Amino acid sequence: MSTRSGLPFFQELCRASDSGARRGRLLLAHGSVETPCFMPVGTQASVKALSPDDLLSCGAQIILGNTYHLYLRPGHELIGELGGLHKFMGWNGPILTDSGGFQIYSLAQMCRIQEEGAEFRSHIDGSLHRLTPELVVEIQEALGSDIMMPLDVCIPYGASYDEAVNALERTTRWAIRCKNAQKRRELALFAIIQGGMFPELRRRSAQELLALGMDGYAIGGLSVGEPKDVMLQILGEVRPVIPRCYPVYLMGVGTPEDLVDAVDLGVDMFDCVMPTRNARNGKIFTSFGHIVIKNAQYAGDNRPIDEECQCYTCRNFSRAYLRHLFMANELLVYRLLSIHNIYYYQSLMKSMRDAIEADEFQSFKGKFYEKRSVKQ
Amino acid sequence: MSTRSGLPFFQELCRASDSGARRGRLLLAHGSVETPCFMPVGTQASVKALSPDDLLSCGAQIILGNTYHLYLRPGHELIGELGGLHKFMGWNGPILTDSGGFQIYSLAQMCRIQEEGAEFRSHIDGSLHRLTPELVVEIQEALGSDIMMPLDVCIPYGASYDEAVNALERTTRWAIRCKNAQKRRELALFAIIQGGMFPELRRRSAQELLALGMDGYAIGGLSVGEPKDVMLQILGEVRPVIPRCYPVYLMGVGTPEDLVDAVDLGVDMFDCVMPTRNARNGKIFTSFGHIVIKNAQYAGDNRPIDEECQCYTCRNFSRAYLRHLFMANELLVYRLLSIHNIYYYQSLMKSMRDAIEADEFQSFKGKFYEKRSVKQ
Repeated sequence: MSTRSGLPFFQELCRASDSGARRGRLLLAHGSVETPCFMPVGTQASVKALSPDDLLSCGAQIILGNTYHLYLRPGHELIGELGGLHKFMGWNGPILTDSGGFQIYSLAQMCRIQEEGAEFRSHIDGSLHRLTPELVVEIQEALGSDIMMPLDVCIPYGASYDEAVNALERTTRWAIRCKNAQKRRELALFAIIQGGMFPELRRRSAQELLALGMDGYAIGGLSVGEPKDVMLQILGEVRPVIPRCYPVYLMGVGTPEDLVDAVDLGVDMFDCVMPTRNARNGKIFTSFGHIVIKNAQYAGDNRPIDEECQCYTCRNFSRAYLRHLFMANELLVYRLLSIHNIYYYQSLMKSMRDAIEADEFQSFKGKFYEKRSVKQ
Repeated sequence: MSTRSGLPFFQELCRASDSGARRGRLLLAHGSVETPCFMPVGTQASVKALSPDDLLSCGAQIILGNTYHLYLRPGHELIGELGGLHKFMGWNGPILTDSGGFQIYSLAQMCRIQEEGAEFRSHIDGSLHRLTPELVVEIQEALGSDIMMPLDVCIPYGASYDEAVNALERTTRWAIRCKNAQKRRELALFAIIQGGMFPELRRRSAQELLALGMDGYAIGGLSVGEPKDVMLQILGEVRPVIPRCYPVYLMGVGTPEDLVDAVDLGVDMFDCVMPTRNARNGKIFTSFGHIVIKNAQYAGDNRPIDEECQCYTCRNFSRAYLRHLFMANELLVYRLLSIHNIYYYQSLMKSMRDAIEADEFQSFKGKFYEKRSVKQ
């Protein structure tokens, strides 16, 4: 168990005997979170197409907000003045906010990263901004995030050893600056492990950040284009370096298979845009594989997406209706498919939590893979 | 009271002493409807951005579907095979479907109207189609509409007397053909009064259609660009021709003010895309006038849209949040604003029903107009 200011923060409840998988619980300012958990992504203070009620009905316990986006629009001062991000968006459960490091790397124009911070032009209007480690903490404290992330330096897949060294060293220095900048001690602050695709640098990054005694440890810079076996290899190298008392968060991952494999290696927390983005593109996750809803084969299919699924969409609507809405560009379909996909992800996490408690994780994993390859 | 096959269909419950306004009740295959009522428009088997649950929570009792759109996509045979429109879209309350006459006039390309029917090219893919009075009934019977509308001939505002005569005469002949084509006697079939902006022709159209003994009478071809006083004048001329035992439906109308004025003249049923379309454009209806949500004045406004409104949106979200969502093009905002606007329309109808029951309609109307002009 880890504590913060003398209070319990993360508890490991039990471990699988045949896997690195474990059950845990985060105790956050806005409630507790059962782990392993998946955090739907609410980039601009909204998990796209879903209301807070929808998220609760899907079983979401904690959601993610994006510091970079909220800083640019509508602005963290405004959200702070209006009572914080929870009140602003009507979500009373826990919120983790990322730091903007990844968005600066992937979205911002003409980004210049120096020791002081990252200078970039807004993807919205081209205006010039600078994010520093201190400002990133100030933003997240204004938002009132239950878990804050420090500014980090992301590198592309294929970056050289020297680039990876420089990025990890600066990431450590920035983590220290973030920790020193923190004023609201009731909010948790994680660190982000970098080091590219070099196991040695990953271990070094983890050790440097562990020395800082952060509240939890995230693994960044994975799922950036590398083959999946490379991702799992890096994860397998770095995960054991992090003591069991800390929650471990694999950022930006991933497919259902990725989640199962990473939980197997001992990851506790995930976020990814995949369930919501795929939903808006008509790609649906099910226990027996994917459905592309626009396919003609569903035009007259009166079955729900998944007959075993208990989500609002599967309880009320047929594949034929959903396909019709999708072909007709009806707004309702984005919500209905997002509900299903988020429900699927949350149910998958719940199944993994149950399997760990029953100490049947490998058996669960085998059945999961077997079923996912069935075509319907 | 009017009956259909010996069963009560429409009951006038009470009348205002100082107005033509009246309280009534429609008894339809999928339930009863308190009138005056407003029917949200579900063009393509979906009231845009709203789920059936949303509609119920807004107080909607009956919705409208579009024969033309559903015929083209996904096709009425398909919907019929899948169990009808109610089952297809998950709405178990009453549905009225229009006939497609207005859409052929406003949407279809290269439309050619002959005595047999209307030949037109699809607005979706340009394919050639022909709607006849008989096909329009067949389509609506496949959909299973509680209230069907016959194919009619719409003319533009400014049409000549001769054009108006020809359109109304053909509309009457087509109404007869629709009546003769009807097989499912448990579904109601209305008639549509035409006659352009000529009071004499409006009265003639009504009399010809009344002679057919239809289940209810709609007034078509209004709100097509004429000044509001012309619309009310025509309505004032034609409404008294229709006996009290029939429900009267003013098609495609309108603003909140239009609804109040038309109820005052004795109209029972309305439909309009305005509340949902305006919502998607960020224009919100309230008891004190309109709000354009993107206006900068709402950026930091922590109040709900309307502090007296009990809709889901007003109970949970601030103007500042809704403005943020709108500026960020977040899908959620279309649903939240649509919920508010439909709730507003339904509440307005409820207030009118209450005012009629209390025999205070003119007093209600005075207060309504006074309050609507207040700026906030």
